[in-house]
Amino acid sequence: MPNLLGYNYIAGARSAAGSVVLQSFDARTGEALPYRFTQATPAEVEAAAQAAEAAFVTYRSLSPERRAAFLDAIAEEIDLLDDTFVALVCRETALPEVRIKGERARTSGQMRLFAQVLRRGDWLGARIDRAQPERQPLPRVDLRQCRIGVGPVAVFGASNFPLAFSTAGGDTAAALAAGCPVVFKAHSGHMATAEMVADAIVRAAQRTGMPNGTFNMIYGGGVGEQLVKHPAIQAVGFTGSLKGGRALCDMAAARAQPIPVFAEMSSINPVLLLPAALEQRGDAIATELTASVVQGCGQFCTNPGLIIGLRGPVFSHFVEQFAARMADQPAQTMLNAGTLQSYAKGVAALQAQAGIRHLAGSPQQGQQAQPQLFQADAELLLAGNELLQEEVFGPCTIVVEVADEHALLQVLRALHGQLTATLIAEPGDLSRFAMLVPELERKAGRLLLNGYPTGVEVCDAMVHGGPYPATSDARGTSVGSLAIDRFLRPVCYQNYPDAWLPDALKDANPLGIERLVDGAWSRAGLTRG
Amino acid sequence: MPNLLGYNYIAGARSAAGSVVLQSFDARTGEALPYRFTQATPAEVEAAAQAAEAAFVTYRSLSPERRAAFLDAIAEEIDLLDDTFVALVCRETALPEVRIKGERARTSGQMRLFAQVLRRGDWLGARIDRAQPERQPLPRVDLRQCRIGVGPVAVFGASNFPLAFSTAGGDTAAALAAGCPVVFKAHSGHMATAEMVADAIVRAAQRTGMPNGTFNMIYGGGVGEQLVKHPAIQAVGFTGSLKGGRALCDMAAARAQPIPVFAEMSSINPVLLLPAALEQRGDAIATELTASVVQGCGQFCTNPGLIIGLRGPVFSHFVEQFAARMADQPAQTMLNAGTLQSYAKGVAALQAQAGIRHLAGSPQQGQQAQPQLFQADAELLLAGNELLQEEVFGPCTIVVEVADEHALLQVLRALHGQLTATLIAEPGDLSRFAMLVPELERKAGRLLLNGYPTGVEVCDAMVHGGPYPATSDARGTSVGSLAIDRFLRPVCYQNYPDAWLPDALKDANPLGIERLVDGAWSRAGLTRG
Repeated sequence: MPNLLGYNYIAGARSAAGSVVLQSFDARTGEALPYRFTQATPAEVEAAAQAAEAAFVTYRSLSPERRAAFLDAIAEEIDLLDDTFVALVCRETALPEVRIKGERARTSGQMRLFAQVLRRGDWLGARIDRAQPERQPLPRVDLRQCRIGVGPVAVFGASNFPLAFSTAGGDTAAALAAGCPVVFKAHSGHMATAEMVADAIVRAAQRTGMPNGTFNMIYGGGVGEQLVKHPAIQAVGFTGSLKGGRALCDMAAARAQPIPVFAEMSSINPVLLLPAALEQRGDAIATELTASVVQGCGQFCTNPGLIIGLRGPVFSHFVEQFAARMADQPAQTMLNAGTLQSYAKGVAALQAQAGIRHLAGSPQQGQQAQPQLFQADAELLLAGNELLQEEVFGPCTIVVEVADEHALLQVLRALHGQLTATLIAEPGDLSRFAMLVPELERKAGRLLLNGYPTGVEVCDAMVHGGPYPATSDARGTSVGSLAIDRFLRPVCYQNYPDAWLPDALKDANPLGIERLVDGAWSRAGLTRG
Repeated sequence: MPNLLGYNYIAGARSAAGSVVLQSFDARTGEALPYRFTQATPAEVEAAAQAAEAAFVTYRSLSPERRAAFLDAIAEEIDLLDDTFVALVCRETALPEVRIKGERARTSGQMRLFAQVLRRGDWLGARIDRAQPERQPLPRVDLRQCRIGVGPVAVFGASNFPLAFSTAGGDTAAALAAGCPVVFKAHSGHMATAEMVADAIVRAAQRTGMPNGTFNMIYGGGVGEQLVKHPAIQAVGFTGSLKGGRALCDMAAARAQPIPVFAEMSSINPVLLLPAALEQRGDAIATELTASVVQGCGQFCTNPGLIIGLRGPVFSHFVEQFAARMADQPAQTMLNAGTLQSYAKGVAALQAQAGIRHLAGSPQQGQQAQPQLFQADAELLLAGNELLQEEVFGPCTIVVEVADEHALLQVLRALHGQLTATLIAEPGDLSRFAMLVPELERKAGRLLLNGYPTGVEVCDAMVHGGPYPATSDARGTSVGSLAIDRFLRPVCYQNYPDAWLPDALKDANPLGIERLVDGAWSRAGLTRG
């Protein structure tokens, strides 16, 4: 087992001034691991935010290539985290080794993707309108715009992706790429994992000469509130529950200076099973859907929590097949005791609700999560029942049967915002159900056809976002390269001399990037008008 | 005088179900004009929001060219508003004819700029990552992303730009360009102007076949709150006071579904006078700065409200010259009685503050605004005095003298967020004060060198935005083509057939736009991977 210090990371040093000590546990056995972490004191939270603030001007002024080299170095250090590390993550989260190895690759891959974005340069949003001294009735001055980081960013990691959505996860990568120092609040469910990843980031920062304070990490419950309220913090990234995310949003909105919060919170990811597809391959769909529901013990933001079909013998047959397969699924260990407790509570609430019937699943008891299948009356959803809109985090899903296309549209419109919306369809369904697409576009950030939402590709075109409560701001994504946009703001320079302009806007275009010059895209160097 | 109905604009029809009647006044004389407007009832506000919602899917699904033609038609209709119209605007606002004619051209110019943006297509943010079925360890599916409008937008116009920031102003243009229907709340200071402009928009909508409900306008006090809280409204554009803007932000953040508010609120637009420039051309600067302070009776968001210089005989001489010129400036009529009342209150507060001395200006009395010049101790600003950070809307400015470069940096850091920050400098100042630039970048959306902030060019590179309280979200601008970004959200299509994809993402690239394909920008048509 690795030897860990358990101190906070502040301004490139380690600090443990407090007396509140937090324990890391084996997620499978509940046994205490030999790792203890010292909760950050108010003074340490303050110091972490100030360290990020102090690093900001230097860090954001580094060339995109310097920051790209930093992200590449983080990727290398993460790839070097060995089997001992993987075993530790597995112990803290009960996630299987193959998953953690995949997530390690995804996490380093994300860093490399943002390094590529930095080198491509479109994130800078460079726009130049040259002076027109002869213009009538008034001359135009030289105006140039590009984007800079908003300032220090507070990041709250997720329990369910201890690597890809945590210490060196997507939000951290996007913020660091944007030129924003990060104060990361370590998740209580994988504090030892967080420490090893933070060490990797710190090694990369040292290797590439990043300023102290570029990355900071603090441990503890309650430290998040102080962090979000700190005047130096200019934006927040969060992945977690609706309750937790909304609380952060409310705090941020109530600040003397309100700041944006990008919270990825709650989605039930509707899957619409269209009749031709069910007729042609209903059994295969039942098998595939079951696998998607129980994969990783259902602990995905994009887990399919609502399955909708059109009433009739084909759908009834499908539901039988689906129930039979769900009944066969074994119990699985969840990320931690709190997650299991929430799951049991969610399942119990569904069981107690009139209009919802239990179709499959062993009684929820013991130390593991039992996969569960329910069926709900469509009327319940149309009547605005909140239970059907709430994510039950775990291997549980609900089937809803609707009478016809009209009812299908009604049910779709009654849904809250979603990360994903999926159609399972055959060519015969496509023209009949084309009217669904505009509705789906309003409801979700990602629309899938004949796939299952539980795979999220990290790429330029991905949107892992969506209307509230899927996220707090539908204009952002927390996966994929567009995530950098959340942490950038535009600045305009009027009549500035070349020497004072950022490289992105200098006449000679030293970064060699695409720029919008006098209304047309160009990579050319310029002469002043 | 034109004949006006005074009814609300809802879903392409006129409606006046209420009994509260509002009066339009001559801003110069206070005389009632022969125009009365019926305040929207709660049912009418509801109907306006629902009309926008009902129009949304159809309107946003129109081709960019169709929407561009609509914006061009609005521009034509605005250009056709004749001298009778100009005279009416002048009566309602007390702004001079030459200014209103200029603003009319700016307003139609803004519409045409957004039409150009629609045709250029970069606002769509098209990104395509093609399928890689052979990729190891897992295949990649086809993923395509572009941006669509967020939904109906509520717009609150400004008092000080009855055309360019009002009914058919920048926020309306940006929202309509983005595919978002608008519900506009007419400003009480120029309701007749609003009606004539709304008529122009309606004529353009009819000529170009836009759906009813694409543009709606309601009159009245208090209707704004209901509008911002309406579930159909998905974003808000606002230009006005800090108090009003913050109230809308707080309402929007407290909704069951919080929505973004883009409020342009309060900025004092610091101007730093550097020593070599003052030495070389202090008298000219005094003249130019005076003109900038009193232009349009100081009723600009970018009015220079804080003038900072380095202590010494050169600056003392400048202050004398500046005071002499300010003392010479005539009183001017403000936009309305409320604006004058606020100005008098702001001036009185400065007069009553210890540490602030009155340098020039006749006693504030009567029906016009007297230009005023004050000098404040730098210590007051450093001590966090709020009075010095608050915009006094009108022809008033404050001089602050600092001891040295260090004190200059301290004062800059003590300032809140700004729309603009200006340096008046000569080559001799540039290297000595280069350290100011990173500080200015943090404080403001637009940095000027040797210009005055009271001219805002409408172009691609403009940023009329900035950190709080200049705006509620530093990531946006309310002037220039980037303003469209505020009302767009990304949607990702996974494995969708060409027929179901928006034109921006179809294989053949029928819009002929630049797209990010597999990580590289291209206008080429595609074959599927």
